[in-house]
Amino acid sequence: MQRAAARALRGARSPPVRMRSVAARSPPRGLVYERHGEPPAVLQLKDLEVAELGDSDVHVKMLAAPINPADINMIQGSYAILSPLPAVGGSEGVGEVLEVGRRVAALRPGDWVIPADSGLGTWRTRGVFPEELLLKVPRDIPVLCAATLSVNPCTAYRMLADFQPLAPGDSVIQNGANSGVGQAVIQIAKASGIKTINVVRDRPDLPKLVERLMALGADHVITEEMLRKPEMKEIFKSIPKPRLALNCVGGKSTTEMLRHLQPKGIMVTYGGMAKQPVTVPVSAFIFRDVQLRGFWMTQWKRDHAQDQQSLASMIDALCQLIRRGQLAAPACTEVPLQDYKVALEASMKPFTSSKQILLF
Amino acid sequence: MQRAAARALRGARSPPVRMRSVAARSPPRGLVYERHGEPPAVLQLKDLEVAELGDSDVHVKMLAAPINPADINMIQGSYAILSPLPAVGGSEGVGEVLEVGRRVAALRPGDWVIPADSGLGTWRTRGVFPEELLLKVPRDIPVLCAATLSVNPCTAYRMLADFQPLAPGDSVIQNGANSGVGQAVIQIAKASGIKTINVVRDRPDLPKLVERLMALGADHVITEEMLRKPEMKEIFKSIPKPRLALNCVGGKSTTEMLRHLQPKGIMVTYGGMAKQPVTVPVSAFIFRDVQLRGFWMTQWKRDHAQDQQSLASMIDALCQLIRRGQLAAPACTEVPLQDYKVALEASMKPFTSSKQILLF
Repeated sequence: MQRAAARALRGARSPPVRMRSVAARSPPRGLVYERHGEPPAVLQLKDLEVAELGDSDVHVKMLAAPINPADINMIQGSYAILSPLPAVGGSEGVGEVLEVGRRVAALRPGDWVIPADSGLGTWRTRGVFPEELLLKVPRDIPVLCAATLSVNPCTAYRMLADFQPLAPGDSVIQNGANSGVGQAVIQIAKASGIKTINVVRDRPDLPKLVERLMALGADHVITEEMLRKPEMKEIFKSIPKPRLALNCVGGKSTTEMLRHLQPKGIMVTYGGMAKQPVTVPVSAFIFRDVQLRGFWMTQWKRDHAQDQQSLASMIDALCQLIRRGQLAAPACTEVPLQDYKVALEASMKPFTSSKQILLF
Repeated sequence: MQRAAARALRGARSPPVRMRSVAARSPPRGLVYERHGEPPAVLQLKDLEVAELGDSDVHVKMLAAPINPADINMIQGSYAILSPLPAVGGSEGVGEVLEVGRRVAALRPGDWVIPADSGLGTWRTRGVFPEELLLKVPRDIPVLCAATLSVNPCTAYRMLADFQPLAPGDSVIQNGANSGVGQAVIQIAKASGIKTINVVRDRPDLPKLVERLMALGADHVITEEMLRKPEMKEIFKSIPKPRLALNCVGGKSTTEMLRHLQPKGIMVTYGGMAKQPVTVPVSAFIFRDVQLRGFWMTQWKRDHAQDQQSLASMIDALCQLIRRGQLAAPACTEVPLQDYKVALEASMKPFTSSKQILLF
């Protein structure tokens, strides 16, 4: 009774209060792994210790956090950066600030925050994090957009902006076009008047997938097999050959995609879903002057950690697209935290088009 | 008698006269192919028609011309650019100007010239060429240096200059290090204080080859097998990991070489002697941010055809290195034109370290 009365007095929207009352009721919980392995086997939903709030710390109540392929690889121990064990899974998500340390100036209770770097451990109900690991985002965008903003749309935005000057009417080709990044590429390109050729793997429900990507703004959606066929010429009657190719697959798909690049075109590799290397005929380098480069959002964020302006202007540009309805959250399946095993298994299935989002 | 007297009067060093007297004695001859195929089979030494000298033309007596891998591929019909048939073989060489058309201002009889583009057909005793296809070189460098200047040293020079800023003490790794380009890379890098790690194929006379490349200024000469061994670490105790890799092989050699590049390093492919594609693990792009690019001297010359300054300053820089004894001609075997079949066969043998040079 006393607690309920206090809540009513202070107002349910007053986060520090709510936190304290919640904290008093139940400790934070999170998906913890103590060793590397298959996520459904090694992750356990556990009570976490309540960390003390330091002067530069921020206490955050997580609202929603997706399961991304990189999260799976980190838990498996096969990713380029690994968290010290034991660790809480998850690198992306959105949370609401509950309280801030005395020296925290840029964040206030009630603000929404997303991770500024990989490996924050977002699959938890609450956590205390140093301020520099968080980035403020506006509260007027849908929670699912905010929860999925810090990796995929940022990756898509940077790859379209940083490698090749693209003007309206130019074209971009990408494989894995139904991935989170792929869907963001389609929408950001569309908003800039850039044409997209989107390669997906053949599958039983292909027409449905094609329809969905076209609805997002895709100009062409083709299968990997199509890349080898003479019908490709038809596409290049209406749009120019791509100056930029975005690769998250590897193997044959990538080699075939590369053949359609313009001379002096650039291919950016940001993933390797096929678990096969990129293979390029020597002639493509010598006689067509194509360039192969790579992109990793984690590295970009580290390289730009002191460059708040670049970071803020990217978040701002993406939020504007979201507000204008030009950048939607990826197709999501919302799953309550306790059902995390179902979500993990769904996220690891081949041909998954729907992103699993944990709700706290 | 009359002809000999005229020669004596005009002086043997007066080229137009010498040309006319030569012309009167014998028509120009050249190595002609009427169809694509294996060079020893399809090339024939033939009398050529004497072309008339147009106002913008230059009549050139060839002095020496090498047999390069690209020449072989052009004759085989497998190169990216092919000459209209019938064609005279050869893309590199040095000649002496015999006479010039009325509108030719930049060249005079007696000048030495090299081709400004590929496919000139240098395997001939004399020829009439448009002025814009020729580039003047100083006469105070050895004839074998001039004959081998326009492709390999220029390729080496540009690859060291245009892709990655290199400071004294930085290192470069290259495969096919005993190729014409490879030898030029060693010498140009040495003159700039840049360390070279030179990869060659294992062979019976390896110690001799190692000695020769070390004498040119190589810092390390290793076999392809060495690339995979832990002993590589020893090298990187004394010099930094390379920021630039130069690849003319392809296949496994290239993948292994790439592993030693610094993060954010660049690999430039300019040849594919192994006739195998370049294969790169996805992680090299994403987590090490390596870049793969290509270089083709022919394209560079076309892109810079109007930029005489770039061209002239490169030739000037290379000639200065030659004069200072810092850039020698590659190991050469000089062969009289009539023995061309021997030279062609020698040039197509595996493990050929000596460049075949036709003399006219």
